[in-house]
Amino acid sequence: MDYCTELAKRGCAAKTAARSLATLSTAVKNNALMNMAAALEAGSASILKANGDDIAVGRQRGLSPALLDRLMLNEARIAAMAEGLRQIAALPDPIGEGLGLQRRPNGLEIAKVRVPLGVIGIIYEARPNVTVDAAGLCLKAGNAVILRGGSEAINSNREIIHHIAQAAYSAGIPEGAFQFIETTDRQAVNALLKLNQYLDVIIPRGGAGLIKTVVENSSVPVIETGTGVCHTFIDESADIDLAQAIAFNAKVSRPAVCNSMETLLVHQAIADKFLPGMLEQYSKAGVELRGCPAVMKYNPAVKAAADQDWATEYSDLILSVKVVGDLQAAIDHIDQYSTRHSEAIITRDYDNARRFQQAVDAAAVYVNASTRFTDGFEFGFGAEIGISTQKIHARGPMGLPELTSVKYIVNGSGQIR
Amino acid sequence: MDYCTELAKRGCAAKTAARSLATLSTAVKNNALMNMAAALEAGSASILKANGDDIAVGRQRGLSPALLDRLMLNEARIAAMAEGLRQIAALPDPIGEGLGLQRRPNGLEIAKVRVPLGVIGIIYEARPNVTVDAAGLCLKAGNAVILRGGSEAINSNREIIHHIAQAAYSAGIPEGAFQFIETTDRQAVNALLKLNQYLDVIIPRGGAGLIKTVVENSSVPVIETGTGVCHTFIDESADIDLAQAIAFNAKVSRPAVCNSMETLLVHQAIADKFLPGMLEQYSKAGVELRGCPAVMKYNPAVKAAADQDWATEYSDLILSVKVVGDLQAAIDHIDQYSTRHSEAIITRDYDNARRFQQAVDAAAVYVNASTRFTDGFEFGFGAEIGISTQKIHARGPMGLPELTSVKYIVNGSGQIR
Repeated sequence: MDYCTELAKRGCAAKTAARSLATLSTAVKNNALMNMAAALEAGSASILKANGDDIAVGRQRGLSPALLDRLMLNEARIAAMAEGLRQIAALPDPIGEGLGLQRRPNGLEIAKVRVPLGVIGIIYEARPNVTVDAAGLCLKAGNAVILRGGSEAINSNREIIHHIAQAAYSAGIPEGAFQFIETTDRQAVNALLKLNQYLDVIIPRGGAGLIKTVVENSSVPVIETGTGVCHTFIDESADIDLAQAIAFNAKVSRPAVCNSMETLLVHQAIADKFLPGMLEQYSKAGVELRGCPAVMKYNPAVKAAADQDWATEYSDLILSVKVVGDLQAAIDHIDQYSTRHSEAIITRDYDNARRFQQAVDAAAVYVNASTRFTDGFEFGFGAEIGISTQKIHARGPMGLPELTSVKYIVNGSGQIR
Repeated sequence: MDYCTELAKRGCAAKTAARSLATLSTAVKNNALMNMAAALEAGSASILKANGDDIAVGRQRGLSPALLDRLMLNEARIAAMAEGLRQIAALPDPIGEGLGLQRRPNGLEIAKVRVPLGVIGIIYEARPNVTVDAAGLCLKAGNAVILRGGSEAINSNREIIHHIAQAAYSAGIPEGAFQFIETTDRQAVNALLKLNQYLDVIIPRGGAGLIKTVVENSSVPVIETGTGVCHTFIDESADIDLAQAIAFNAKVSRPAVCNSMETLLVHQAIADKFLPGMLEQYSKAGVELRGCPAVMKYNPAVKAAADQDWATEYSDLILSVKVVGDLQAAIDHIDQYSTRHSEAIITRDYDNARRFQQAVDAAAVYVNASTRFTDGFEFGFGAEIGISTQKIHARGPMGLPELTSVKYIVNGSGQIR
């Protein structure tokens, strides 16, 4: 199949829709979001049926239980997706926000205002809820969206898009605002990555492999998201109980997400006091431990860490643990292995706290808290389209303002240069 | 030569320098900028000698007079480059600026602060002053920079970098902050475009060909700059004198720059009154005119415009002119051919002014003023690294804040999720 032609058609339709979307009133967009929520709930039977097909295929293909769980929908999960759309409707509309206004000496009045990005491509993996989140957030920020979900969820996604798109279009959203790529052929992704004429940005959401493919092959601007090799450093002066509670939470509370800790670094001067109890807690919670030789001597359950371990996002109940000589050694280790997502120091020392926060280059740098808080909702944004780990455009959790661009509106009275 | 190894070495050195640069005080950076300015002036004899070599080679190669003029340095131009560095020293330091601070219900204090991007790659063409501008702006915003200038200016650039880098290093800037790629082999550019491990962003500055190459081949995030197919639309209700003054200025004042007008659109109802005098003015100023049939009948000097003309950035005293049926036809033409840089409407009609500014998708949209004002200095930024024509990260003229990223600094007291 000629994906370039097919995608150009979809891109063109999205761009045409984006032109109208940019000037829609907040009321129309919010009403559409409420309609979409109702349509999801009303259509739950057919969505669950389609999801059942995906689950059956997934079982045949031998998908892991974790992947099947991410793929699986039920009434409660559909209700949560609908609730998500209602929350997006309740958020302030970012479009039209003034970001500065000045009168120049020559009388020109220059206003900087927030406008939509235009057409956003989202490439994601197994979770069907991303379809709903992405469609809702892009719509609220006035963008058209081209969605390309994982092949595992193709039936669920097709059914979801059918319901929410119809609900939106019947509420006054221009047709074409939601484009769903139905094929599971990877060639379609390659064509999407070259669709500069119609796409303003591509946001990949998923594992390291997907993100690497997109970053390396896209000529459309990319916002890189998600991979998190996050560290927690237990400084010499840390409060032991507080440090253990945070280090336990950062690893165990939800190991599959990108803001969970993958490597624990421990100052050598506190290792004797901190590590025995800590390793014991992890073992009891079923955490597989991989450590440097200094760590291994504290607990027989600790296996030797290989070089590769320090660079691995396990996304699982596995933790690498290392004893370091001092704060600088911790900073150097993080500099070498971090994906610049979220990093934490546990300390009672003022200077060390400041030094760590200044020296560590990451989207979020914590003192005395769990890295698990790097999240659009926890940061108070009310929504999240992903967590940027690159430095341009957006860094850290991305909410509605991160789905926008700006435009200078200049009013004159005959000024020439 | 193995450019991957060579560039990785330079990238690594730049990244190491960037780590120290990020925490340098404003005073050290400003002092270094003043030193660099003095070094340029003190080294002017050797810089002019090197520039003479470039000019001689350029003449042998048959470079156009326009290109030779851009390449050519003299005492006044060196003084202007030095003055540019002193102006950058006088600008506020963007680094450390607070962009928001909140206390969450759980007591977490989350600050968003401005930090450097890290390592910036600049790929540019013949003008040696870009070397100085880029080095100065990147330094002030706390970034290391990898510079790759055009082969035409290789001797001038090498000499300039030698003087300013030594002056900066002797004033406390970490060695490695300025990397200059000495080879003129294009393979070096290709290697630079894949240097994701060390580079945070690449900014191409130059003609459409260079920018296309970078956008299509870079896996490092790119900020696309510059190409400007800018339009001025003369609405039915325009004041004739004001419209003619603006349309003349937008084309003639400096045709080689990206914010100059390439296409003039005229409402059919005002064509009889507006065009005869306007075309006469252009002809007298030596502007070559290419028009639609409706335009050709007003002046025998107007040649027939080909389809390609509407999409061409002439960067020269050439103008395409078209009569359109109404405002919507003007908006549609702009939508089809604009590079989304700068667009203007000349009108006395309130509704048409608003409609044009809302519907036209460009970095800067003007009412009753020349597009020539899209410029970092004219916008009051005090500096400019380029004009972004993409929608992510920055749009329109980019000053110091556009050379930065952000970081969340999170302070807690034991918070877990």
